[in-house]
Amino acid sequence: MKNKICELLEKNRQNTKNGSLPTYIPELIKTDPEILGIYISKLNGEEFGCGNYKHKFTMQSISKVITLMLALEDNGEKFVFSKVGMEPTGDSFNSMMKLEIVTPSKPFNPMINAGAIAVTSMIKGISSKEKWDRILDFLRKITCNPNLDINKSVYISEKSTGDKNRALAYFLKDVGIIVGDAEDQLNVYFMQCSIEVDCCDIARIASFIANNGIIPSSGEKLVSKKNAIIAKTFMLTCGMYDGSGEFAINAGIPAKSGVGGGIMAVVPNNLGIGVIGPALDIKGNSIAGVKLLSDISKEFDLSIF
Amino acid sequence: MKNKICELLEKNRQNTKNGSLPTYIPELIKTDPEILGIYISKLNGEEFGCGNYKHKFTMQSISKVITLMLALEDNGEKFVFSKVGMEPTGDSFNSMMKLEIVTPSKPFNPMINAGAIAVTSMIKGISSKEKWDRILDFLRKITCNPNLDINKSVYISEKSTGDKNRALAYFLKDVGIIVGDAEDQLNVYFMQCSIEVDCCDIARIASFIANNGIIPSSGEKLVSKKNAIIAKTFMLTCGMYDGSGEFAINAGIPAKSGVGGGIMAVVPNNLGIGVIGPALDIKGNSIAGVKLLSDISKEFDLSIF
Amino acid sequence: MKNKICELLEKNRQNTKNGSLPTYIPELIKTDPEILGIYISKLNGEEFGCGNYKHKFTMQSISKVITLMLALEDNGEKFVFSKVGMEPTGDSFNSMMKLEIVTPSKPFNPMINAGAIAVTSMIKGISSKEKWDRILDFLRKITCNPNLDINKSVYISEKSTGDKNRALAYFLKDVGIIVGDAEDQLNVYFMQCSIEVDCCDIARIASFIANNGIIPSSGEKLVSKKNAIIAKTFMLTCGMYDGSGEFAINAGIPAKSGVGGGIMAVVPNNLGIGVIGPALDIKGNSIAGVKLLSDISKEFDLSIF
Amino acid sequence: MKNKICELLEKNRQNTKNGSLPTYIPELIKTDPEILGIYISKLNGEEFGCGNYKHKFTMQSISKVITLMLALEDNGEKFVFSKVGMEPTGDSFNSMMKLEIVTPSKPFNPMINAGAIAVTSMIKGISSKEKWDRILDFLRKITCNPNLDINKSVYISEKSTGDKNRALAYFLKDVGIIVGDAEDQLNVYFMQCSIEVDCCDIARIASFIANNGIIPSSGEKLVSKKNAIIAKTFMLTCGMYDGSGEFAINAGIPAKSGVGGGIMAVVPNNLGIGVIGPALDIKGNSIAGVKLLSDISKEFDLSIF
Repeated sequence: MKNKICELLEKNRQNTKNGSLPTYIPELIKTDPEILGIYISKLNGEEFGCGNYKHKFTMQSISKVITLMLALEDNGEKFVFSKVGMEPTGDSFNSMMKLEIVTPSKPFNPMINAGAIAVTSMIKGISSKEKWDRILDFLRKITCNPNLDINKSVYISEKSTGDKNRALAYFLKDVGIIVGDAEDQLNVYFMQCSIEVDCCDIARIASFIANNGIIPSSGEKLVSKKNAIIAKTFMLTCGMYDGSGEFAINAGIPAKSGVGGGIMAVVPNNLGIGVIGPALDIKGNSIAGVKLLSDISKEFDLSIF
Repeated sequence: MKNKICELLEKNRQNTKNGSLPTYIPELIKTDPEILGIYISKLNGEEFGCGNYKHKFTMQSISKVITLMLALEDNGEKFVFSKVGMEPTGDSFNSMMKLEIVTPSKPFNPMINAGAIAVTSMIKGISSKEKWDRILDFLRKITCNPNLDINKSVYISEKSTGDKNRALAYFLKDVGIIVGDAEDQLNVYFMQCSIEVDCCDIARIASFIANNGIIPSSGEKLVSKKNAIIAKTFMLTCGMYDGSGEFAINAGIPAKSGVGGGIMAVVPNNLGIGVIGPALDIKGNSIAGVKLLSDISKEFDLSIF
Repeated sequence: MKNKICELLEKNRQNTKNGSLPTYIPELIKTDPEILGIYISKLNGEEFGCGNYKHKFTMQSISKVITLMLALEDNGEKFVFSKVGMEPTGDSFNSMMKLEIVTPSKPFNPMINAGAIAVTSMIKGISSKEKWDRILDFLRKITCNPNLDINKSVYISEKSTGDKNRALAYFLKDVGIIVGDAEDQLNVYFMQCSIEVDCCDIARIASFIANNGIIPSSGEKLVSKKNAIIAKTFMLTCGMYDGSGEFAINAGIPAKSGVGGGIMAVVPNNLGIGVIGPALDIKGNSIAGVKLLSDISKEFDLSIF
Repeated sequence: MKNKICELLEKNRQNTKNGSLPTYIPELIKTDPEILGIYISKLNGEEFGCGNYKHKFTMQSISKVITLMLALEDNGEKFVFSKVGMEPTGDSFNSMMKLEIVTPSKPFNPMINAGAIAVTSMIKGISSKEKWDRILDFLRKITCNPNLDINKSVYISEKSTGDKNRALAYFLKDVGIIVGDAEDQLNVYFMQCSIEVDCCDIARIASFIANNGIIPSSGEKLVSKKNAIIAKTFMLTCGMYDGSGEFAINAGIPAKSGVGGGIMAVVPNNLGIGVIGPALDIKGNSIAGVKLLSDISKEFDLSIF
């Protein structure tokens, strides 16, 4: 399996040339667009990487899956879905339009920015500091990586250019979806987006989800099976922005991308995948990463359909 | 399995009282809202039904899955998706808004009415008569039911009240998505919606899809594996109107509903399910059928996630 | 006044080069884009023309003002505005989006296509033939031109390419705004758009409106003062498509344009203006006509503000 | 004239019972909903009031007209309209939807909140303090009322509940329409909305605009004729939220309302009117004020059409 995957990675490296780096978070542009790496973590413990799998990048929207699971554990399904919907939307990742048409004004799902900001605000903690500590602890446990932390310069860059997210947060506050200080809630969101990882970290989170909330190496259960299934479902229906439908057809596996170029993909009961490829397509997904995952899914017949 | 499913059906029959019959197709209101039936067709040949599984109903939107597979076989993936998109949308089933915002004006996916009308127009045939004959033959083969035919009074009712679909068709013609006589293309669409079936017919179509395009009983291959996977993917991401996301979370199996009260559900590589329950929820799905399928999925751990 | 206006016309003729002919009604492209003409009809009986004022063109959307006045006379304000709204909209002239968002589905105003189709359907007559005859009689009286008639080749061109209007009509029928045969109602609409006029005809309609519904030459009253005021108000707030606001600021006089290149402008209690300039700006208004009218308004201080 | 107007006012007082006080700015609910007052200021110096014309209220959206004139004087037409559009919109006063659909993201006009926040940000001043001082000076001059000032408790109420406006401001900052500190810019906007006036102050601003930017009593020119005309035009096309079209038809005079219950109406070259009636209709306009102005317009034939 490893040889074939490494071969597919090298074949797909040329696709990085057709993408481009995101410009709206200035710090993200300081990277090599030709990078492509992958790491596989199987539930049986087997692990391996190909290409630039040691490259460090920030989680960005991949973190939305983590905070969703934590918020579900903290508050239960019923409460979370009273504030955020369950339906995919054809709009792009930072659309505000949908917020207004639906009555009551509820973000469509936890994978769009508005929904994710609402979800983060539900994580328990008497202060934003405590919320943040709980997110980081949760992630360090899942990845078995006690050194996981934020990339400060990316965090500062996000925070200083995050006015569209600020607009979403104040809109959500106005309609009563989030409570308390909007800037404080946003701060936790900017921090979660700025967590620095490599493909191995992402692959381990993916295998934890593939294993329905139990850390494969230790057997420790952190998330209920139902909540892990919810995470996988949202990854499939809306994890790849407005390219989710196409990815579901071509690769057929739950996946979540981030504008940092990472993709976390989950093959239920089988394995987790972490991919990095900073050059993005027009929808905001790693252009080579999307193709690599489709190729791997076809080669090893991984589609859940 | 049969006993448990029949038990779950009777438990869910009370839910029919919370739904209502659709009013916009007058003919559909002439039915008993307390009906609930299910039929299971396993790939190993085992079959059984519970409740009012012999009740006759019209396919309505369930037919969109059939015509999608036929259009894909006729034209190939590339052509079909040059006219219709792959992305789910949070809008309801007969929305026209989405058609306008996206440029070029392309229906979001083949499960919304605009997309389905476009798909039907792509089916090969030198006349609408020939297109229709090919659809009916295709369905008779899949269901092993040579008597399958349309319900004329429903067909006449649809045709005479189908002005919203007419509006969609003329919009699609205006932007060049459909060509030729719009009323002719619509006629085939109204006919496919009016095909009369029972739960057994639907379960057999479902098992054919679960078997990736091969009729389980005869081994005859009518649809490529890829095209069967495309059908299943759209069923999961947008088969239940704007309740698709919620159904994916709760039941986790590809399914397509129709306003006639039918639901076709596919458990890949395992079995097909046909459900009838004419009382609908506000999203247009069989209110008791949705709950019954969720219960069955939980009981037998059928989620694909 | 005549000399100055003719001078302003020649100065503005160069602007025709920055516009283009509409392509969606094929027949309209067969004209000389450098044409520019104007005709003034004062309430005191004085009249004169400059440039290509004898050029023949079709009324297109200018006819919406005529049918609005006739429908108001036929049905009264209350009935008409139960079917069509009074509010301007920032959308372009053939938008369908607005129809859907507002509940109940009522076209925003009588100047967008959906509203105009609804208005025409309200004109009294037991057949579409009778409705049409009444519109034509009404116009022949106002213009004192018994030879006014449709341009058949434009009419055929409109009818055969009018699928977007067909979509609007069927949508309106579906929501109950228009009743009866949609194609029949549309036919009258296509005919009114195809009425062939010259600048003199348009100027006389404008002076009739400027005179609050009384034909200046004969003193015959055809429309109530209130209905004439309603016509002027809609011309100002939404007569120039999504360029209405800008035109109101720059020229400050009620005006209605058509894609045939005509503009009808009304200076209340003073005079009527007919302009022809087939080269259009991106909003669908005569590019040189808009500037000419702004120049004339400034020169003679005609703004109503 | 006075007697007739006072009579019309008393006749319309009963209409206050059909309206309601706004709830989203808590401080505004502390008023008597049966209040109705009017003040007329003619260009010839004649002035009079009827009903509760001495009642104090906050300007709210009426202030948008003032800041528009000041921003136009400060920056010129071209710059202002590079940031804000000129077109009316059928949406309600605090819609965010329109901001997104139009490309580039430019508020439709200066009378919706997004447009007004952008306009205020353009007023010259090296600090928000200086901007604010310039607005207040400008208004004190126009009203000949050196004591004009903000109502502090309303200001605090607006600021603490202004999250929807905050969302708009951050959206505008994100797309580059406003620059600098969004909270600072908003602060000036909240202050201008909280300026406390009575009907006499409003009538004098209106007569200043009716006089094309020249203070009638002193002859001092503060605003160019063109900029005064721009103000009047926007008042007519979009001064009464999504009731602007209806008001233009029924009253036919440029007017701007505020949720404080005030309306400022301008009869060009004739007189200015200030109205207070805190009970609002569903569109946010003084319910009795709207009817009173329509009655007065009809009685004295004030329509500009």
